[in-house]
Amino acid sequence: MIEMKKKLSPLGHSLKQRLQSGQNLKFIEAHNGLSCLIASRAQVSVKDEVREFDGIWVSSLTTSAARGLPDMEMYLLENRLDTIREIVDSTEKAVLVDGDTGGEPVAFEYLCQRLERLGVSGIVIEDKRFPKRNSLSEDSNQLLENPIAFCEKIRRGKDACSSSEFLIVARLEGLILGQSIEDTLERAMVYIESGADAILVHSRLSEAGQVFDFAKKYQENFPIKENRKPLICVPTTYNATFAEDLFAAGYSAVIYANHLLRAAHQAMKEVTRSLLLEDRSFESETRCSKVADIFNETGYTAAIARDKEGLAL
Amino acid sequence: MIEMKKKLSPLGHSLKQRLQSGQNLKFIEAHNGLSCLIASRAQVSVKDEVREFDGIWVSSLTTSAARGLPDMEMYLLENRLDTIREIVDSTEKAVLVDGDTGGEPVAFEYLCQRLERLGVSGIVIEDKRFPKRNSLSEDSNQLLENPIAFCEKIRRGKDACSSSEFLIVARLEGLILGQSIEDTLERAMVYIESGADAILVHSRLSEAGQVFDFAKKYQENFPIKENRKPLICVPTTYNATFAEDLFAAGYSAVIYANHLLRAAHQAMKEVTRSLLLEDRSFESETRCSKVADIFNETGYTAAIARDKEGLAL
Amino acid sequence: MIEMKKKLSPLGHSLKQRLQSGQNLKFIEAHNGLSCLIASRAQVSVKDEVREFDGIWVSSLTTSAARGLPDMEMYLLENRLDTIREIVDSTEKAVLVDGDTGGEPVAFEYLCQRLERLGVSGIVIEDKRFPKRNSLSEDSNQLLENPIAFCEKIRRGKDACSSSEFLIVARLEGLILGQSIEDTLERAMVYIESGADAILVHSRLSEAGQVFDFAKKYQENFPIKENRKPLICVPTTYNATFAEDLFAAGYSAVIYANHLLRAAHQAMKEVTRSLLLEDRSFESETRCSKVADIFNETGYTAAIARDKEGLAL
Amino acid sequence: MIEMKKKLSPLGHSLKQRLQSGQNLKFIEAHNGLSCLIASRAQVSVKDEVREFDGIWVSSLTTSAARGLPDMEMYLLENRLDTIREIVDSTEKAVLVDGDTGGEPVAFEYLCQRLERLGVSGIVIEDKRFPKRNSLSEDSNQLLENPIAFCEKIRRGKDACSSSEFLIVARLEGLILGQSIEDTLERAMVYIESGADAILVHSRLSEAGQVFDFAKKYQENFPIKENRKPLICVPTTYNATFAEDLFAAGYSAVIYANHLLRAAHQAMKEVTRSLLLEDRSFESETRCSKVADIFNETGYTAAIARDKEGLAL
Repeated sequence: MIEMKKKLSPLGHSLKQRLQSGQNLKFIEAHNGLSCLIASRAQVSVKDEVREFDGIWVSSLTTSAARGLPDMEMYLLENRLDTIREIVDSTEKAVLVDGDTGGEPVAFEYLCQRLERLGVSGIVIEDKRFPKRNSLSEDSNQLLENPIAFCEKIRRGKDACSSSEFLIVARLEGLILGQSIEDTLERAMVYIESGADAILVHSRLSEAGQVFDFAKKYQENFPIKENRKPLICVPTTYNATFAEDLFAAGYSAVIYANHLLRAAHQAMKEVTRSLLLEDRSFESETRCSKVADIFNETGYTAAIARDKEGLAL
Repeated sequence: MIEMKKKLSPLGHSLKQRLQSGQNLKFIEAHNGLSCLIASRAQVSVKDEVREFDGIWVSSLTTSAARGLPDMEMYLLENRLDTIREIVDSTEKAVLVDGDTGGEPVAFEYLCQRLERLGVSGIVIEDKRFPKRNSLSEDSNQLLENPIAFCEKIRRGKDACSSSEFLIVARLEGLILGQSIEDTLERAMVYIESGADAILVHSRLSEAGQVFDFAKKYQENFPIKENRKPLICVPTTYNATFAEDLFAAGYSAVIYANHLLRAAHQAMKEVTRSLLLEDRSFESETRCSKVADIFNETGYTAAIARDKEGLAL
Repeated sequence: MIEMKKKLSPLGHSLKQRLQSGQNLKFIEAHNGLSCLIASRAQVSVKDEVREFDGIWVSSLTTSAARGLPDMEMYLLENRLDTIREIVDSTEKAVLVDGDTGGEPVAFEYLCQRLERLGVSGIVIEDKRFPKRNSLSEDSNQLLENPIAFCEKIRRGKDACSSSEFLIVARLEGLILGQSIEDTLERAMVYIESGADAILVHSRLSEAGQVFDFAKKYQENFPIKENRKPLICVPTTYNATFAEDLFAAGYSAVIYANHLLRAAHQAMKEVTRSLLLEDRSFESETRCSKVADIFNETGYTAAIARDKEGLAL
Repeated sequence: MIEMKKKLSPLGHSLKQRLQSGQNLKFIEAHNGLSCLIASRAQVSVKDEVREFDGIWVSSLTTSAARGLPDMEMYLLENRLDTIREIVDSTEKAVLVDGDTGGEPVAFEYLCQRLERLGVSGIVIEDKRFPKRNSLSEDSNQLLENPIAFCEKIRRGKDACSSSEFLIVARLEGLILGQSIEDTLERAMVYIESGADAILVHSRLSEAGQVFDFAKKYQENFPIKENRKPLICVPTTYNATFAEDLFAAGYSAVIYANHLLRAAHQAMKEVTRSLLLEDRSFESETRCSKVADIFNETGYTAAIARDKEGLAL
């Protein structure tokens, strides 16, 4: 059982406010309730500092993959809102949802409303044509969306929400699809004019140069800091770059976008192999959490304790 | 995309027939579509032999845990049939479902019907009182169900199905709750008389002695092999025992009941820790499958290829 | 598309506050998004007064029936939270959920949390043993729950919620199961002490005498009005009694608990009959809303208009 | 509880075989389990003949409307597969699903597989561009799909299914979008060549002339009856035409596509009005089925009887 999330920081600020006030935020992917519990509770002490994640990223790639489906915007087949509710029900952290292209404007309106009601903090939509293909797949032919159509979608999404606190983040796919930084920046400007609350710049190069360059030009373009919308990036391919360097370069948030699913995948593959090879699970045990760990993580132990306390009354 | 499963072996036999014909079967837990894809495709070559799993075990512990929920028969909260459909849609292997206590008879009738229609091969129900607690939790007070009530549930479940091929497996919890082997065997007998298609004996000792003893006495009780119903066991705690020794002792199937979820849990915990500690994902990469592996596993790569073929026409 | 509901009256009061302040509220059953839209928008002008419903009742009988299932607390089979979300997403009115017995305490804790997060205003649980049978079914043997166990459930439900505004309503089944008014009142007292926010008295007599008597004795028992918790009743069988007379007798709310589903059922039966008999739908048309009415009700017409406006920009 | 459907006629023929053998079939819309139970059980005796429906039509308009959503192919928002499973679980009749445009080919492949596994007999897809608008809405601008793309979709859907018995029906929208009968017929020909198992001709005129003309020319085009694929029509607007006249003209099936939802809508509107106006439900009772009818329809009465029988043992 999770205490009611406030979607607010200890100081009472929403995700939107935290992003705008220049806090440096780290998001991590979750694809189901369990990965969300792990992500929400992860804490590391480094010297005097306690580090934890600031929010949960509900990835389309990984929530599709967890269901055994390709990342091709085929929401029709499965129950994406269910998974999102499951994740929201498992955390007090801010939840940011990967909304692919957002679909057509009317579908996007309904989706924004429903997410806002579920307690999600915001949605990211990318400026590609529906139905999108995964951005890291070099094989897929993808086209950028008409910017006028994309702006209309942003505008209608904002109109549909009851509060301006619900974030609509515009994700720029131009760098991946071979556009120049200037053209990509141009799109960022019109998206912001249409109401986008933040800009996510995506890149699939193995070095972060492009991402640094974009931030630099973006800031030159908005010399007055108050006029800038927050920048977000996703260091999946340029994974040797430290988050703190991305923050220093002007990004307000980084997203570790698919690592828990990929770690689970590798571990499960290894364990199936070992079970077949060894003809028993003994050799796999060191790679597996104990059953008692699962009891603790899922609230089983705590529930048994509450039951006992009740019986003792 | 998965080719339509026949729920039949290459020789055209159902899970029930394969169990009864004395094949030695290995089941492995899956808790979502992805773990099911991995489990279904796992293959190891040992000398001239190709080993793979024979079926998928839909565990209550792990499907609850994947959603962030304790294993307390709280189906009301979530969409268990959805998860089962997702798993069935991801495999051609036989699927066996952990049905906890089965609930009351009328609920069990509906559940058997729905599972049969989804293409599930069978359900296991345990002879404890509703709502059950996890069998491996030493803290939980649990009571055995009245055998007359349990038999009535088996009988009504069998009646509700359209085909006798849908397996209803009676799971004996007596050994865990301190009953003698004789009393537990007694229950097995009456469950079989009421229509149980197989018997699952559960134990939580770290050695398999109890499990071997039960099988020996069970076989003495049914000296004519044709009269025996198949025996199944779950070597979670006695994990140093080889499956082949359990088969030799008279078990027809073993279930690795929760290992993929536990492996995923440990891997995800380690990766969250590394991401926070290192401030980047570079150090986690060796513990993570590549994005391209996820594309292959989920059929993304194949779908892109089909799309290209279509465009080339 | 529905504007975000505030679950507050125009004066900014929650359902709990409105009930406690002595407003007279009318709830009507809904079993899906459509019936909820109809219920939410229903308005009748009588002289200078505009009448509408104050809230939506999510009935177990009718949400089960809409799915083709009997009212036997078999939530395991279907997706009740989905239906509730669908209803919440279709109204700005307060939503009150029929929680049957509430299940065991731990399940009830999770359920209260999830409902609160979905934006539901409260839950009603009845003091019968799990799994309940419908209260209007004379054939079903039902037993009252141990009051100590029921109080523990109320207490734990209240603890699990993040706000005291989420209502837990105790539903008294004593009158239906042959208890005296005094015994039933006694239970009301201990439920209130355990934290129940309101009391629902159920009766299946065709006259309201019992219901009036209960209210009278209840008020005598709590001579100081501020100490009383609000009373609710469900005039299904005593349907000749006017709501205003029930309000005058001390009830704060009445629930029309299953009428929309029953009306839909009768209409659908009649239309299937006519289609078969007449060999065409011409004769059924007067009993059917026009397709354009469905377009209007579901927001289709409005969405087409928004799309056109967007294209015109 | 429903006996397992065989999706076969008493003579053991699939829906595809029945359509091809020239049986005249009537489908009726259902939008949830309850409407499906009513539709499946409806029977009328006319002289010596017993009439009933042959199959269930899962309409997009009505399943969306039942959830309170517009008919705009916004599957992403809701759980359409759940509703389809609920309907399949409530009938032994053949189930035909309204698939709108079918989406892009890869999504359509997955959808066909999942529907086939759920026990659905076939899917209808229309030759409009994604995302479709309702065909009866005169306000919506709609475009016909490129026939090459539509044929590719048909072909890939057929490939994805495990059995050729799963029907893919091509729905012609040309007549509604102002194409000539000749052009529409031309499309029918190429869809059949690509594997379409049947042709659905849609018209929204108030007279059936167009529909009769199409059938005539279609038959002239395929003078040898064995070469023809079955024709289906949807007499929503030309509702004064008798089914038997449509059969005589060459149609193999008619679909009453939205009448149960529309009947339910009207009845629910009337009852909300009466409840508010009369301040009690007494006056509504004649428009409502009795609670006992709901008990019977949903299997409650039968389940209580089975429980009693069990207790008596």
